[in-house]
Amino acid sequence: MARVREAVRQSLAELPRGTTVLVACSGGADSLALAAATAFEAPKLGLTAGAVVVDHNLQEGSTDIARKAAEQCHSLGLNPVQQVQVEVSGPGGPEAAARSARYGALTRAAEELGADVILLAHTRDDQAETVLLGLARGSGSRSLAGMAPISGPLRRPLLEVSRSTTVAACLASGLTPWHDPHNDDPAYTRVRVRHEVLPVLTEALGPGVIEALARTASLVRADADALDALAAELTATAVRRTSLDSGMEVQIEIGALESEHLALRSRVLRQAAIEAGCRPTDLSAGHIAAVDELITGWRGQRWIDLPQGLRAVRRAGAIVIGRGVTG
Amino acid sequence: MARVREAVRQSLAELPRGTTVLVACSGGADSLALAAATAFEAPKLGLTAGAVVVDHNLQEGSTDIARKAAEQCHSLGLNPVQQVQVEVSGPGGPEAAARSARYGALTRAAEELGADVILLAHTRDDQAETVLLGLARGSGSRSLAGMAPISGPLRRPLLEVSRSTTVAACLASGLTPWHDPHNDDPAYTRVRVRHEVLPVLTEALGPGVIEALARTASLVRADADALDALAAELTATAVRRTSLDSGMEVQIEIGALESEHLALRSRVLRQAAIEAGCRPTDLSAGHIAAVDELITGWRGQRWIDLPQGLRAVRRAGAIVIGRGVTG
Repeated sequence: MARVREAVRQSLAELPRGTTVLVACSGGADSLALAAATAFEAPKLGLTAGAVVVDHNLQEGSTDIARKAAEQCHSLGLNPVQQVQVEVSGPGGPEAAARSARYGALTRAAEELGADVILLAHTRDDQAETVLLGLARGSGSRSLAGMAPISGPLRRPLLEVSRSTTVAACLASGLTPWHDPHNDDPAYTRVRVRHEVLPVLTEALGPGVIEALARTASLVRADADALDALAAELTATAVRRTSLDSGMEVQIEIGALESEHLALRSRVLRQAAIEAGCRPTDLSAGHIAAVDELITGWRGQRWIDLPQGLRAVRRAGAIVIGRGVTG
Repeated sequence: MARVREAVRQSLAELPRGTTVLVACSGGADSLALAAATAFEAPKLGLTAGAVVVDHNLQEGSTDIARKAAEQCHSLGLNPVQQVQVEVSGPGGPEAAARSARYGALTRAAEELGADVILLAHTRDDQAETVLLGLARGSGSRSLAGMAPISGPLRRPLLEVSRSTTVAACLASGLTPWHDPHNDDPAYTRVRVRHEVLPVLTEALGPGVIEALARTASLVRADADALDALAAELTATAVRRTSLDSGMEVQIEIGALESEHLALRSRVLRQAAIEAGCRPTDLSAGHIAAVDELITGWRGQRWIDLPQGLRAVRRAGAIVIGRGVTG
């Protein structure tokens, strides 16, 4: 528990006294250990610490489980403790829908209770899983960057703490975590990564691999942050938009881009294509490479077909992306 | 074989007529398919194509295997074909030593034969393995960037071709590839990644995972190239060196760094620490983060201990790295 408390203390130390923080608690080992450590550390830092328990209402007895988690948070000294039921529906598969419902409920609870900070219990193991899932998407740095330690009101104090540490912390403190059967259901990709991929990866590459994956996430996150910010500056000077009857037409000045690095050109072009109306999920690295060829490999190409019926052409010193554009 | 030929044609198309290219051939399926495709495509592009077969002399009968590979290259129409024996020794484990001996021999052969380009037969599968090995090191973008399609005289035309395609190409062309028993020896980390990790990863995440890993490499490579180049520019303006009796002392101007992105600050600081005498392999992300705190989290720290007995301090508007420095 000392390790968990230290991680929580480090994460909370920079918050101004009087801030209210809420622990998002499912009743599982990770979030129960986080709740216990926060209840211990927050008062010493002059913070008010409460909890929110989200009942996803997806399993038989979920309300009882949520109630038990809320009771444990209460008895740890957290106050206020709010229990909220959400309805999981919406696009992108059951995991995405549950996540989106959960984050919505957490944000609403924070507003209602006047909290500025929500603490999430993701561990180093969760981070390693997220990196592997991102790797499998093959969409570059941002998808390898895992979860952010701080993102708006959300904080993840346990990103460098292992899951075995949170389990041991619960045991040592006499807490009884709930074991979510979904965590063993191989229908979920994340569960397969956890129970099948990571053990084999550890066996083949050594026990440091989970830590290495988490470290990769934080290094790659810094890279992606820098390049995204530099590309946004470049976009501000290089990209113009014109609203036409046929839709948005986006012009990217070639002179501003041609001497820039590929990593920046491709980010600016991707952003421009999205602004012109391409769905991000339909836009591949291959599309962007073909548009980039209009700049760096110009040999009189006709046009590049993009998702959603859009096209990119080279015209009068610019790349133009829009509907039905011609060179 | 059509797919292999197309990849080779694309890679060679930009070379000036009259260039001599050498295929590095081990006799295995990948390099034999590369040799066959190069023998077919090079004359049509006005190129001279030869081969080099490196005999590592590590296994019983290696010279016979090399001779058979050289004969196959000859009968494919490659000319000149050179067979060279190397002595594998040196630092960094048997795989690193063999690689270093091989690349040395290839470079010498290219010089002797007047070749400008050496073709290596690494496939998409090799690239995926390299990304996973880099991931396990946890040292960020550069270690995830895999192998470069072009690096000095080296070219890797098959980085987007799968190993199963090269095997099929050999079968279809009546070539008999040699199967290196080292490729099945689980003492090698790469072999464990190939035979244990990748099948499980494919099972858990779907058949597109190898392609996704290779795509990740090329996206992350572009990111690392851009940030390394930007950091080098920053180093040129921000870093000064002073040669002292106690060794090299490196000063980094804080004003030049403090408003830069973390990804750039950390690259400049890492480079400065290496110039001051830290061994790259001993220098962790944790060391660099601690030195960076002297810039972004200054609260009167005394000094930061670095590898090889070096120290970093903050002094007169600069970070100073050297032996025995004080603030």
